[in-house]
Order: sequence, then structure tokens, then C-alpha cells
Amino acid sequence: MTSPTGPTSLPAPAGEDARSLPGVFVSFEGGDGAGKSTQARLLAAWAQAHGREVVLTREPGGTTLGQTLREAVLHGEHVDPRTEALLYATDRAHHVASLVRPALARGALVITDRYLDSSVAYQGSGRDLGADEVERLSLWATGGLLPAVTVLLDVDPAVGRTRLTGSPDRLESAGDEFHRRTRQAFLDRAATDPDRWLVLDGTADPDALATAVRSRVAPLLGLAAEGAASGGAA
Amino acid sequence: MTSPTGPTSLPAPAGEDARSLPGVFVSFEGGDGAGKSTQARLLAAWAQAHGREVVLTREPGGTTLGQTLREAVLHGEHVDPRTEALLYATDRAHHVASLVRPALARGALVITDRYLDSSVAYQGSGRDLGADEVERLSLWATGGLLPAVTVLLDVDPAVGRTRLTGSPDRLESAGDEFHRRTRQAFLDRAATDPDRWLVLDGTADPDALATAVRSRVAPLLGLAAEGAASGGAA
Repeated sequence: MTSPTGPTSLPAPAGEDARSLPGVFVSFEGGDGAGKSTQARLLAAWAQAHGREVVLTREPGGTTLGQTLREAVLHGEHVDPRTEALLYATDRAHHVASLVRPALARGALVITDRYLDSSVAYQGSGRDLGADEVERLSLWATGGLLPAVTVLLDVDPAVGRTRLTGSPDRLESAGDEFHRRTRQAFLDRAATDPDRWLVLDGTADPDALATAVRSRVAPLLGLAAEGAASGGAA
Repeated sequence: MTSPTGPTSLPAPAGEDARSLPGVFVSFEGGDGAGKSTQARLLAAWAQAHGREVVLTREPGGTTLGQTLREAVLHGEHVDPRTEALLYATDRAHHVASLVRPALARGALVITDRYLDSSVAYQGSGRDLGADEVERLSLWATGGLLPAVTVLLDVDPAVGRTRLTGSPDRLESAGDEFHRRTRQAFLDRAATDPDRWLVLDGTADPDALATAVRSRVAPLLGLAAEGAASGGAA
């Protein structure tokens, strides 16, 4: 599984990140029930109130094809770990090529609820494939596109679970030990690249969290963090 | 696109091929209308007549998930080349893990109408990605599984086209130059590994072709090529 790089390894592109495009790419990561979609919406509302084009999206399932893949991976027949990794990578490749890159090229703020770090944390550490393999696959899929800012909303999985509604999907219903390993994988990953990651306590007050996120993103948009419109924090 | 292997390359497994499993894995390759499905059926009928378990399958679309992916890739919205490569690789990973490997482990003869060489020929040479990248992706997807025998039914694309019925899918409706490049890619690939490839003139008599295929496959099954039942060559 973790054989050294050899003649049958997949070459990935030379790591263009989103900072080379005119737009700003922000991802939210963390366990289920961590508050990612709430914070993504608050950030979107704030930037829109300041006249910026915002594309608010998610993985898996941010495109029409992605919806099909999302169904297959979360609710379909059982698949082996490589197939699962490839389903997520396919969704991500199409999401980036058809939606994220064009929006960044127009100068938009693109906010995604989950991106490649979720694959690395959930599959690379939580299950059977190596984190390194999963990351390389996603980097190949996306042409090496990384967010300028990745917000990790860190919560104890037991707390996150109490916030969920509806029937659990395949990942949500995995065991406690799996979710503890995944949480640690996010934290470990964030620690290796503090320039990209912003780690926040997901149990903090939502308005305080939104302020912290804005403080990090505002300079990239040429805005003050606390503008007149603080962003429809309903 | 063809950057040298570096730290962001995907490690592939160390190339287990199908010859290490008790069954026999045979793929048929070639352009549309080359006679692949006819020859696959004739080989299957012959081996079944000799009491062998045969699994006759195809790519894309050999599984339930694969049917969904086949629809997406051949008839769905436009996708970029990386997404297309990943859709085929996902189909292939699931096909191998859920159907091909279990059958080979039982000792069956698995006959597939198209396998990874189609991806390499169509995408690696015919379109925008490098053959090397497409092959590495498929090898990663399949855990390095290669057929014991790959039969290339070689035909001029203009001849193949006259044999097709129904409305063309996305690949069938690509231009003549694309299909000429793909044909050459199959021939070049076959020339590099004569131990695996059997190249036949797809315009020859179907019974003569079936005999040539049986001659190659029979020793791997411990059979004489021309048994009493020559195989329901309807």
C-alpha cells in the first residue's frame, strides 16, 4: 500500500495553488455536526454584503455529476477503499474543473464545505489507504489546487453527533474510534501548514467563530474584517 | 502534464498481475465495431463447453455502480479529461475488486470486453492526458492487475464504423483522426509486450479468429485448443 514511488507512480502536476488565481478559495473542514455549513453561510453572507461574488459549494455533490457520485459513495452498494477514494477524487476533479476554477478565474470568493483534506483525514487515516496516497490522488484530480485558507472547526465527535439531524449516512454511522482518529488526523494535518489552516474550537459561540473566520479571510479580499454589514448572522 | 515523478506522485502497488491468481484473465481490445464482443462470447462458449466457470464482463459498466458511471461518461454532461480518466478508473477499481478478483480467486476464466488498455489508448494518446499518467492511474485503481492475455482485434476505423448499429456514443462520434491515433496507440502498446498481447486482423473470418484466440488461451486452462465442442460459433 505504501510502496516507494516507482515507475508505476502517478505524476501529479507541480502544485499550482489557488493563490495564483485572482479569486479566493476557502474550505471548511471538520467532523459532522462541527458547524461547517453554518460558518460557510455566514462568511458568504458577509462577503456578499460587501459586494463580492461568492460561490458557496460543497463536496461531495457540488455538481450534477457530483450528486450522482455522492449518492453512490454515501448511500450506494459497498465499495472497496480504492473505489471509494476514486469516487471522491472524480467528484473533486469535476467540481474543480467545472465550478471552482472558473469562479476563481473570475475573481470570486469560492467557499466549499469540505475539500481534499476531508478525503485525507477520513480515508487516509481513518480507513485502509495511506494518507499520502489519498492526497496524491486528490492533487492529481485537481491539478494541484489548494485553498488559500482552510478553516478547521474542531469538535469532540460526541458533541458533533448531538447536533446531527436525520438518518446517518455511511460515514456518520461509522464507529467512535474512527471519528476520534479522523479528528486527530485533521489536527495533525493542520499543524503541518499553519499558513493555510485556521483551527477553531467548534463549540465556541457561532458569532465569535464567524468573526475569527472573517479576520483571516478579509485581508485576502482587500476588506476590513468588521465592515458595516457584519453579515446576516441569523 | 508529464512532469517527472516527484513527491506528489501517487505510489502504485508493486504490479501483481493476474497470473498469480488461480483463474485466467483475458481482455479484448480494439476500436468500435472490431468484433470484440463476438469473439469474447465465442471464447466464453468454448470454455463453458469444456466445463470451465466463465465470467463474461465489460468495461465500462460491468457492475451496478459501473452502469451509473458508464452513463455519466458516455452520455452525460461534458467532463474534463481528468474527470473522464477518473470515471473510468473508478469503474475499473470497483469492477476488479467486486467481480474480477473474486472470480479469478475461484479459478474462473474472466473475459472482459475492454480493460485498462482502452483507457490508455483512447485517453492517453487520443486526447489530452499522457498515456503514462492514464496507465498509472489504472494500475493504482486495480492494485496492478493485468490480464494474462490481451487480444487486440485490429481494424481500420472506417471498416469498424460500418459494423456499428444504433446512435453513436461520445467516443464513437469522435473524429476520424482521433480513431486513427487510437488504433496506432493499441498497435504500439501491443508491440511492447508480445507476451501479453495477441494481435489479430479483425476483418478475418470470425471462426478463424476464434480458433486463433483459443490457441492462445487453451494452454492456460490446461485444454487442447480444438476440443470436441468448438464452441457454439453461431
